[in-house]
Amino acid sequence: MTNYTSEYRVIYADIDAMGVIYHSNYIDLFERGRTEFLRQIGYPYSELEKIPVWIPCTEVHCEYKSPGRYDDLLEISCRPAKLTYATVRIEYEIRNKNTGELLVTGYSLHAFTDDSLKPIRLKKVLPDFYNKMQNLISTTSPE
Amino acid sequence: MTNYTSEYRVIYADIDAMGVIYHSNYIDLFERGRTEFLRQIGYPYSELEKIPVWIPCTEVHCEYKSPGRYDDLLEISCRPAKLTYATVRIEYEIRNKNTGELLVTGYSLHAFTDDSLKPIRLKKVLPDFYNKMQNLISTTSPE
Amino acid sequence: MTNYTSEYRVIYADIDAMGVIYHSNYIDLFERGRTEFLRQIGYPYSELEKIPVWIPCTEVHCEYKSPGRYDDLLEISCRPAKLTYATVRIEYEIRNKNTGELLVTGYSLHAFTDDSLKPIRLKKVLPDFYNKMQNLISTTSPE
Amino acid sequence: MTNYTSEYRVIYADIDAMGVIYHSNYIDLFERGRTEFLRQIGYPYSELEKIPVWIPCTEVHCEYKSPGRYDDLLEISCRPAKLTYATVRIEYEIRNKNTGELLVTGYSLHAFTDDSLKPIRLKKVLPDFYNKMQNLISTTSPE
Repeated sequence: MTNYTSEYRVIYADIDAMGVIYHSNYIDLFERGRTEFLRQIGYPYSELEKIPVWIPCTEVHCEYKSPGRYDDLLEISCRPAKLTYATVRIEYEIRNKNTGELLVTGYSLHAFTDDSLKPIRLKKVLPDFYNKMQNLISTTSPE
Repeated sequence: MTNYTSEYRVIYADIDAMGVIYHSNYIDLFERGRTEFLRQIGYPYSELEKIPVWIPCTEVHCEYKSPGRYDDLLEISCRPAKLTYATVRIEYEIRNKNTGELLVTGYSLHAFTDDSLKPIRLKKVLPDFYNKMQNLISTTSPE
Repeated sequence: MTNYTSEYRVIYADIDAMGVIYHSNYIDLFERGRTEFLRQIGYPYSELEKIPVWIPCTEVHCEYKSPGRYDDLLEISCRPAKLTYATVRIEYEIRNKNTGELLVTGYSLHAFTDDSLKPIRLKKVLPDFYNKMQNLISTTSPE
Repeated sequence: MTNYTSEYRVIYADIDAMGVIYHSNYIDLFERGRTEFLRQIGYPYSELEKIPVWIPCTEVHCEYKSPGRYDDLLEISCRPAKLTYATVRIEYEIRNKNTGELLVTGYSLHAFTDDSLKPIRLKKVLPDFYNKMQNLISTTSPE
């Protein structure tokens, strides 16, 4: 999907009674991918928080294509897909890194807020970060 | 939303670094609501598994309206919303039980499978359960 | 063990690749039992926090006697077992409520702190709560 | 502690209402460390399961020294500390990798069982693995 990827090794804690990764755990992996993406583009979330720029999740969507299993090494890809003054949409793919098999796709929507969860205009508060994401969206052609 | 409701008390384990319920935990609460719904209509999932009828999640969607907090008593409502030969869509609302405030809405899609995750036709394998859900959908007018 | 009990229904999210409750999830159930215990004796933790009296966990211990399974209804019992000026030890038992089978036993140690995690002397800050717990310990004979 | 270490980056999902890593999540990190330890010594748990050699947890203990925070990079160290015919004790340390600060110490006890959770004598079923762990214990001097 993009060059913004991170890895995750599946442990027992992630598996459910069907022997596959429990479906809500992929939502945690979306966060993991998003966190590493922000670090990779130079805006680690732990720094954004201090400004404060919070990016709470307002919507999440996940489609399950194939089950992940214990000890699988996963590759989480993500990219910003749509940016407005007040929100960003991030898209994800999670694959089995060794086989390349696609396990899930999904997206999350996020608001930009201060540390009281009140909306802010990101373009004003942190224009470099806004422009960086806007550039990534412009130069990424959809697959 | 419906009479099919269950309760959940929020603990520390459910909260994240923003001081609110971590967003993926609501997906676990969807499962909790769905499990109690199935029990309430007479088809507990632990019995369905033995047939075997599995109902793995193939898609999940959640919209966050207002943050849930530590020690909130939540009310999870759910209802079947669309049934086909091979899938069911279940819709959810989670509210603060004391204030009535709506925290999240969402849905999940599920396949009907055997214990190897191979699709089955529910209407053939377990017609009473199929008809029960179909009746619930017919008699529930959308809000 | 005591009259301070609460219930929990096991969902898929709690189960691991061995088909049993994943062992760390019992530690979350200790918190659930502790939370309800504090509410039952009149000092809900959500109120203690506001004073602020925090009770962070400094040590936890759990012994696994028998595996819990999907859809089991659990009964969590807990009681304060040792109180000092600055710490409390709480003991737990978790049983299958329907069969009475003992699943785990354990304890947790906690410090009393303010909201910066700095130790406080509970007996000075909240003597009624201190005395209430001390009474419970005195009048509870060990099993 | 030993050369058997692995890393973990803390995400929002790991944090609780006090702003620190929720205490049961370290138990999951013990599993993560143990899994990588087994892989590093040549006996990945996913292979052991196929024999079948299961290593369920029968006891866990954790002491909290200093709080872990969002986005901390953690280093999980573990080593086998005591081996009998039927059980193994594994010890852990988790540190902030950047500062070296010790966050938690702990241990877990495990039985060796087949895939019905019935005890097996590891020395008979898989002597190479037994001897490998015994050697590690003999050559590791306590700190």
